[in-house]
Amino acid sequence: MNLILLFKKDFIEKDLVRLRERRQEHVEKILRASVGDKLCVGLVNGKVGVGKITLLDRMNLEMEVKLTALPPEPLCVNLILALPRPIVLKRILLAVSSMGVKKIVLLHSKRVEKSFWNSPVLEKQKLEEQLILGLEQAKDTMMPEVLLRDRFKPFVQDELPDIIKTTRPLVAHPEGTENFLKDIQGPVTLMIGPEGGFIPYEIEQLEGCGFKSVRLGQRILRVETAVPVLLSKLF
Amino acid sequence: MNLILLFKKDFIEKDLVRLRERRQEHVEKILRASVGDKLCVGLVNGKVGVGKITLLDRMNLEMEVKLTALPPEPLCVNLILALPRPIVLKRILLAVSSMGVKKIVLLHSKRVEKSFWNSPVLEKQKLEEQLILGLEQAKDTMMPEVLLRDRFKPFVQDELPDIIKTTRPLVAHPEGTENFLKDIQGPVTLMIGPEGGFIPYEIEQLEGCGFKSVRLGQRILRVETAVPVLLSKLF
Repeated sequence: MNLILLFKKDFIEKDLVRLRERRQEHVEKILRASVGDKLCVGLVNGKVGVGKITLLDRMNLEMEVKLTALPPEPLCVNLILALPRPIVLKRILLAVSSMGVKKIVLLHSKRVEKSFWNSPVLEKQKLEEQLILGLEQAKDTMMPEVLLRDRFKPFVQDELPDIIKTTRPLVAHPEGTENFLKDIQGPVTLMIGPEGGFIPYEIEQLEGCGFKSVRLGQRILRVETAVPVLLSKLF
Repeated sequence: MNLILLFKKDFIEKDLVRLRERRQEHVEKILRASVGDKLCVGLVNGKVGVGKITLLDRMNLEMEVKLTALPPEPLCVNLILALPRPIVLKRILLAVSSMGVKKIVLLHSKRVEKSFWNSPVLEKQKLEEQLILGLEQAKDTMMPEVLLRDRFKPFVQDELPDIIKTTRPLVAHPEGTENFLKDIQGPVTLMIGPEGGFIPYEIEQLEGCGFKSVRLGQRILRVETAVPVLLSKLF
């Protein structure tokens, strides 16, 4: 936690917050801070600044906060992922949130196990937990949006055209026709398939929609490795 | 498992291997292959090719193998990591093995918890399990070397000068003086600190040894994200 993310409900007065449980415990037990110490804080979807501890006991942490600076720039990318295995999804959400992705679509595809869609990891609150951990890691405050789309074709036909508008649409595909492009200027929509890849029909649909299929090189990487690798090649 | 990694002890005749347990189960239950099917195989530290299944029952898998092609090119990087938390180390080893890193040093540093050095994950066989999973993922056969160095100063003074010879030595550091370099030509030694970073004394020692300290940008990433990000920016 390099920044403590604050929410409106944390404020008990205009510039005073009271935190309990996870954040209070982190400050008490991991940071081992005490009254008077200053910590990096930020208001969700708002500015970052400094919180000065005015009270810290076993239950409560109170800080006087001053929020003055803008959060770091986002990555200009829409990330569309074939839904990964739930345990892996948690780590990927944290990682991409820390990297600055602000729009994430989790999509069904032929090679995604249907049971993944029943995972508790997909509950709104569980998704947000990982996104918050990512923001706290990267000292960011801007909460990413996550869309769940459990049907491939309606999403591609009805929603995808709007999402890719004014972006460069790329789909990572082991049999892609071009090598992955580096240092692309401007916004990108990046689509990454499941382990085993999109099936040919899906690639056709995406190409029909305007996607260019690109490949990363000779090595096939796990999705959790491919995601940071692709994002960092883009920007 | 995109390639089945074979070892000399698997050969029961010149071109015939017999596999049991993990690899046999994978072929039977995940790939659902049968006699006559051809699978991608490779001999550890040797060539890759095709294995044709000649027998598959509940216990044994036998294949006639032909090894004809070279494995993919390695990444020209020595990766030196402050020892991460054991559970995270496992994933990082798999990821860097899949990305083609061939020399990995796990190093102590002030902010590494000493208890990490007692983890069973550091046993030779456990390390190799992760490296093998990475090779199988990326269809590689060349086994990476892992060195464990639980004392910072003797390693930096006695071994590091030899390791960095003929490479460009870089240490990733949030307060680094230069932005991270992209598309470096030629071999690199890349050093990555623990969560919280190297302490100033350690950075001094490394700079004294010839390292340049570089930073990734405004966002602080977890080590498991920073590693693929840094490696993919380099190559």
